[in-house]
Amino acid sequence: MRSTMMPEQLNISTILQFGSTVHSDAVVTTWTAEGPRKISFGDLGKRAAQLAHALRSLGIDGDQRVATFQWNNSEHMEAYLAIPSMGAVLHPLNIRLFPDQVEFVANHAEDKVVIVDPSLIPLLQPLLPRFSTVEHVIVTGGAADTLEAPEGMTVHDYEALLAAQPTEFDWPEVDENSGAAMAYTSGTTGDPKGVVYSHRSIYLHSMQVCMSDGMDISLDDNVLAIVPMFHAMSWGLPYAAFMVGASLLMPERFLQPEPLAAMIASERPTLAAAVPTIWMALDAYSVDHPVDMSSFRAVVVGGSSCPPELIRKFKEHYGINIIHAWGMTETSPIGTLSRPKADLPEEKQFQLRTTQGRFLAGVKARIVDDAGNEQPWDGESVGELQVRGPWITGSYYKVDATDSFDDGWLRTGDVGYVRPEGFLQLTDRAKDIIKSGGEWISSVEVENYLLEHPAVAEAAVVGVPDPKWDERPLATIVVKEGIPDPDVEELRAHLAERMAKWQVPERFAFVDEIPKTSVGKLDKKRIRASHSEGQLEVINALES
Amino acid sequence: MRSTMMPEQLNISTILQFGSTVHSDAVVTTWTAEGPRKISFGDLGKRAAQLAHALRSLGIDGDQRVATFQWNNSEHMEAYLAIPSMGAVLHPLNIRLFPDQVEFVANHAEDKVVIVDPSLIPLLQPLLPRFSTVEHVIVTGGAADTLEAPEGMTVHDYEALLAAQPTEFDWPEVDENSGAAMAYTSGTTGDPKGVVYSHRSIYLHSMQVCMSDGMDISLDDNVLAIVPMFHAMSWGLPYAAFMVGASLLMPERFLQPEPLAAMIASERPTLAAAVPTIWMALDAYSVDHPVDMSSFRAVVVGGSSCPPELIRKFKEHYGINIIHAWGMTETSPIGTLSRPKADLPEEKQFQLRTTQGRFLAGVKARIVDDAGNEQPWDGESVGELQVRGPWITGSYYKVDATDSFDDGWLRTGDVGYVRPEGFLQLTDRAKDIIKSGGEWISSVEVENYLLEHPAVAEAAVVGVPDPKWDERPLATIVVKEGIPDPDVEELRAHLAERMAKWQVPERFAFVDEIPKTSVGKLDKKRIRASHSEGQLEVINALES
Repeated sequence: MRSTMMPEQLNISTILQFGSTVHSDAVVTTWTAEGPRKISFGDLGKRAAQLAHALRSLGIDGDQRVATFQWNNSEHMEAYLAIPSMGAVLHPLNIRLFPDQVEFVANHAEDKVVIVDPSLIPLLQPLLPRFSTVEHVIVTGGAADTLEAPEGMTVHDYEALLAAQPTEFDWPEVDENSGAAMAYTSGTTGDPKGVVYSHRSIYLHSMQVCMSDGMDISLDDNVLAIVPMFHAMSWGLPYAAFMVGASLLMPERFLQPEPLAAMIASERPTLAAAVPTIWMALDAYSVDHPVDMSSFRAVVVGGSSCPPELIRKFKEHYGINIIHAWGMTETSPIGTLSRPKADLPEEKQFQLRTTQGRFLAGVKARIVDDAGNEQPWDGESVGELQVRGPWITGSYYKVDATDSFDDGWLRTGDVGYVRPEGFLQLTDRAKDIIKSGGEWISSVEVENYLLEHPAVAEAAVVGVPDPKWDERPLATIVVKEGIPDPDVEELRAHLAERMAKWQVPERFAFVDEIPKTSVGKLDKKRIRASHSEGQLEVINALES
Repeated sequence: MRSTMMPEQLNISTILQFGSTVHSDAVVTTWTAEGPRKISFGDLGKRAAQLAHALRSLGIDGDQRVATFQWNNSEHMEAYLAIPSMGAVLHPLNIRLFPDQVEFVANHAEDKVVIVDPSLIPLLQPLLPRFSTVEHVIVTGGAADTLEAPEGMTVHDYEALLAAQPTEFDWPEVDENSGAAMAYTSGTTGDPKGVVYSHRSIYLHSMQVCMSDGMDISLDDNVLAIVPMFHAMSWGLPYAAFMVGASLLMPERFLQPEPLAAMIASERPTLAAAVPTIWMALDAYSVDHPVDMSSFRAVVVGGSSCPPELIRKFKEHYGINIIHAWGMTETSPIGTLSRPKADLPEEKQFQLRTTQGRFLAGVKARIVDDAGNEQPWDGESVGELQVRGPWITGSYYKVDATDSFDDGWLRTGDVGYVRPEGFLQLTDRAKDIIKSGGEWISSVEVENYLLEHPAVAEAAVVGVPDPKWDERPLATIVVKEGIPDPDVEELRAHLAERMAKWQVPERFAFVDEIPKTSVGKLDKKRIRASHSEGQLEVINALES
């Protein structure tokens, strides 16, 4: 029996038209060296129409890919809205990928146009001759004459291009399952792999993000989107905010504690989203500088596991609940959010906040062990997390990646367990788990306990070969400034109070810096390589 | 360019499985003569599986219609979850329709099974012989032996039927566009018309209802669903609450002020939804009885226009914001909700709260005048409201109703205007508008102003023939208990302070009762009929 409902499509153009009319007074604020620069959603809608006309004039008449090489700013927001709405595909290039990777993804996606910010021209310029399909480069901020076009490419000034265009556009009705935007994983092994989000997946994800049990975003919010728009779609914040008329605060390239503190004080955002390191840096900065975070109703932390210490500190020092989130480029990205029931005892709430959180209503999940058996949600049975849902990828663009899927489920490569209340606790990346004498040690757990020690600023734990146990943990540690390296036995005693004795590492290395991936995660592959090449000075407590 | 996203369907079974696992501790509380009766979402999920097995055993193996004839209670909730999830179509029969209409809709939908509550057997029993397709009647509450099955029907005891069944069910993957539930309009002219909601439309509507800018429902809520589950799907509350783990408080047949006050005091709901008359009655009851509404964070009012006086009173006396809503059976039903931005001045917020509210993100709207011209959203240009969207019907079940649609838009039959901020202000039903000398008078506006007079308990204003002006307003008024009929000139003076002089009625009739439709709306058709038959004692101020 067919329903009688209208066959109405879920489209980005609906978000654009709705947000720019019903919420025309909401504002996108872009931070600049001179302070805030503001534009209303109403005017943004007009400029998005102008951008769409401009792109049509450059030959974008179908589902060609239009890339961006931009910070979080209002021009990037215009691209987010105009490109999918006109039926083309938005491809935000991750400026932090290694040059070879940027070259690979731009050519793999067959980008026709790139929009670039002035401050990123030095990064883009040497890459342009390596882009094989790009025909047009559009430069924002009036800096077009500082970019040299290689043979076969035309350079345009963003404002000049827009100024000539009408402020209304007859947005086409697009099939909701067609591609709206692309993002590539920053995989540490092999080439980056592309995910193509649909209009439908983005629309549903935006709704979910605005649900009370999502990030609860409403027209009363001013959302500080620190997580880059070139990284997992800024966790869905731009579209979600536009859908409900929440104002947006865009930090541009000013991601250091000092300007962040200034823009928070000036614009008083109610919600912010960023990786843990941003918050650790801001917290460290607050020791000697005034940081007023009183405007936040909550702060969303994801991208990598948030240390419980940070969650406790934000609650105790700032009165702010950290909402811990888990997701991946492949999951649009939000898969879980830690929002415990408000009537639970405080310590229980805290425990749940340290987990990755509860699955969103649209996300189906299962835990599968090495033998392929689905595990119960009992708060202890560990296995790989696999997920399914309408905003989760079921394949990769132009690549056969059957290993990434299991009977219709996405294999996340993350290992953990689920509590009976549906809260996910990740213990490791599958490839980072330490297999010691047939038992598993969670590298993340050891790192979190190390971070509770007063001398430890950063910690990364990897498995290294061991003749007796196959693998044993090696803890690499950055000590806080001005504090001498702690005694290894003291660190081991600290850990022994918190975990099983056999899980406590005997190998330690004090380092100046822990290598990070292009998106700021601990690069454990490089740490393992450094160790195997003998570049780390390892103290072994059992041999000393 | 196709997206790489999974082709995952939006299904009621997802809501059922998600709610009964991740939110297994949430509770449905049914009010009874003995007080509250509770069941967890986890147990409800098991009983829904049992009900699905039981229905399979009665031959429900496809998209047959399974009707309910029930109050809001946990057994009705089981039917809501089980029937669509198993691939059948839920058809809640409106117990307040006239018997001929109930007969019509049950036969038109070809219902195969009816589930009935004990207290409703007296109402259903005489109808059963008139049902031409029903084969099974299932009686809840252990009262099966009080119902006499007509020839060809079998009577079953609900609990006995469930007890024999397994508590798990292998829910089928259903195409999201297939029918999940049916509802019939209670049209005052012609036969009721059927709307078939899809899995997709219900899923999207549930998400929207839980968005911060919807009803903001979360796992911290306990939702008092006064609006009946047999009327416009209880405004979507049952599915929305189950999706996010909000507990539900079901009033069963106890809709009078006394038991409502008792259940509110006992269960402390955080949100409630009902038509205005429920709140007026509760407010009147509070004069002589204790009514503690302090647990409410908000109250949703819809079904008919909410008098501004009630909105002001709830804010001033109880500190509760009334969220005014507009919708129809055809719109799933939520189309608008009045939630002004929190930083607006209080009086501006109040003004916006008296409107029907802002369109939800998924609802496209336009105002079209008599000549078919789309009107601007300028806060004054009046016309018929037309809407489009993924949870709005595009046709009626087995009926050609092209008059109800205009180029893909649903004609709502409601007349009003839209403010620039996207807030809808309805002024009348198209058929109730009073056309006086070529100008329009809003009957609802006159009613609202009359209700601000201290002597007026109820008011209904209709257009009656006038030799000079074609039509003039007639105000029928129920005066508050213990107060003498006010002077007509005093009422006219009261109105003249609030509206244009030519809009002020000269005809008044003081009545004991205002006739209501089967769903409790003012029955203006009957008032006009009474007037034309000379049954109303009309005072004409111009003739006295």
